[in-house]
Amino acid sequence: MNAPSFPAILPTHAPALAAELDAAIANKTKPPGSLGMLEGLARQIGLIQRTVAPAVTAPAILVFAGDHGVTAEGVSAYPQSVTWQMVENFLAGGAAINVFARQNGCALQIVDAGVNHAFGARPGLVDRKVANGTRNFALEPAMTVAQCEQAMRSGAELVAALQGNVLGFGEMGIGNTTSAAAIMHAITRLPVEQCVGAGTGLDTAGILHKQQVIAQAAARHASARTPLEVLAAFGGFEIAMMAGAMLAGAERRMALLIDGFIATSALLVAASLQPAILDYCVFSHCSDEHGHRQMLAHLGARPLLQLGLRLGEGTGCALAVPLLHAAVNFLREMATFDSAAVSGKSA
Amino acid sequence: MNAPSFPAILPTHAPALAAELDAAIANKTKPPGSLGMLEGLARQIGLIQRTVAPAVTAPAILVFAGDHGVTAEGVSAYPQSVTWQMVENFLAGGAAINVFARQNGCALQIVDAGVNHAFGARPGLVDRKVANGTRNFALEPAMTVAQCEQAMRSGAELVAALQGNVLGFGEMGIGNTTSAAAIMHAITRLPVEQCVGAGTGLDTAGILHKQQVIAQAAARHASARTPLEVLAAFGGFEIAMMAGAMLAGAERRMALLIDGFIATSALLVAASLQPAILDYCVFSHCSDEHGHRQMLAHLGARPLLQLGLRLGEGTGCALAVPLLHAAVNFLREMATFDSAAVSGKSA
Repeated sequence: MNAPSFPAILPTHAPALAAELDAAIANKTKPPGSLGMLEGLARQIGLIQRTVAPAVTAPAILVFAGDHGVTAEGVSAYPQSVTWQMVENFLAGGAAINVFARQNGCALQIVDAGVNHAFGARPGLVDRKVANGTRNFALEPAMTVAQCEQAMRSGAELVAALQGNVLGFGEMGIGNTTSAAAIMHAITRLPVEQCVGAGTGLDTAGILHKQQVIAQAAARHASARTPLEVLAAFGGFEIAMMAGAMLAGAERRMALLIDGFIATSALLVAASLQPAILDYCVFSHCSDEHGHRQMLAHLGARPLLQLGLRLGEGTGCALAVPLLHAAVNFLREMATFDSAAVSGKSA
Repeated sequence: MNAPSFPAILPTHAPALAAELDAAIANKTKPPGSLGMLEGLARQIGLIQRTVAPAVTAPAILVFAGDHGVTAEGVSAYPQSVTWQMVENFLAGGAAINVFARQNGCALQIVDAGVNHAFGARPGLVDRKVANGTRNFALEPAMTVAQCEQAMRSGAELVAALQGNVLGFGEMGIGNTTSAAAIMHAITRLPVEQCVGAGTGLDTAGILHKQQVIAQAAARHASARTPLEVLAAFGGFEIAMMAGAMLAGAERRMALLIDGFIATSALLVAASLQPAILDYCVFSHCSDEHGHRQMLAHLGARPLLQLGLRLGEGTGCALAVPLLHAAVNFLREMATFDSAAVSGKSA
């Protein structure tokens, strides 16, 4: 399988601008370094936007929903029907991501990437359904090469239509921690036990069974070696669509908010294809899902929030948006030692 | 020295309401526990406000400024004049706390608790000056008993005039990490080395000198045993005023946002006087100032944010306010499994 032709993503590396940003941050009326991670965040967004006065405009969160054939193996604490029921909940505005996106001024798009349910034409639902759920990757590849490419292309097209400069990614799909763990195992080569967690609430026996399903599937699909082969083998449609959307967002020089376990598995694929995408990634939250911490370590990432969330939906993205505002606001609005006539450090 | 007569603070303990809150949180359309710390926060605010539908209204941050005689010992990287210069910066709207308070809808009050500078009558500056800075506690008590009581009373009076139900505390005072470390040492009995950090940016030699100053002062004021004696011995006016404001806020059943090293030292005093105050405390941020982690451990506290800030001013409070909104919003606005017709966990 050949990679579809994604536009190359440029690193944000720009030594002169970086020095300008560092000087601007150092001149603010505060001890050097005392705004902690917000300083690095301001610098990163400045480099992404190629300016010493970055702004956060029209942040958007895309929530991709898809079903997973592998749920037939009994890998989730919830029935598959919860995927479409939660999509209905998103459309009605009653889910956690609705609440947090409203609160923090994020536009929210709900995308049917491949839910096993006929919604019909519905206001507020973006129909990009590839199929009624993936196939069971315990038995066969989750999707065909053509389906994988279609999903990634759809994600990229959705991003092309957006106006803002900050993009978060959420997901809903019963069984998708199983997909994400399988992708993680295939790409990072970490042992299956380090990749598999409780998802929405498995007990110990459930986790062991999930590990077994993934280990057997990894052996079955051992010939899947390229990032896209791995993605097609283990799914899901929402993960592939997210990966395509991430690549398109970085190409448009948006700041990408990477949330929990599933979204980070999509980034593992995207970063394998185009490593420079990591320059555009802001990691919003360290999930309580086992394995997310190792994913972050693999990527050298340090997330902004550690609230013990394990809900998905992009909830951590929405909660992190005020911190992005804080980073660009201090850079734009704080006085300098000179302008405020505040004395610097004693010699 | 006798404690001034503070109103008794009631614990928020209320088993029936707690059970109602737990049930309301469990019925939301999400896996149990999947909103992590936001769930405990929603429960706590519900108990504080005595309702299953808590709200965050008119959050306010009081920033107390004061000078410290102990700066004569060379314990800070910045000259004392930075305290009044930064107060001017607050009044002009150019400091980090101005930016973050504006962004997150927090009313901001700047209080002269005892700055060594004649501001004159200034719009926006609340004049509660006890004196032009504390005395040098390396040589004598930082303040008199009467001054300590006056400062605490002033803090309480300021809170009595507020309308909202969330109250954050910030401070500005060159030398005040030295005061806070001395208070921490006296109250927690942890070794001086565990209480002393770099403040606004001391080098290793500076930290060792600061440790020595505090160890000698601790020996000099060893007879200070009650929380108020400790507070009077080591200061500062801004810390005493904060402690008084915290007690008054809890008495009015406000949620108290406790930020960094200095604010937490004020809480150590307040909690020694009235342990039930801890029911009202939301810890906004774990500071990079050495010793804050141990203070939090001493109080059994787990902060919401860990951004590596070490700026003071109440910046962590302002940044945490969106998380308080998120906690009450999910409790008020999310659908339940029943209302959204979403299936629960499989048997």
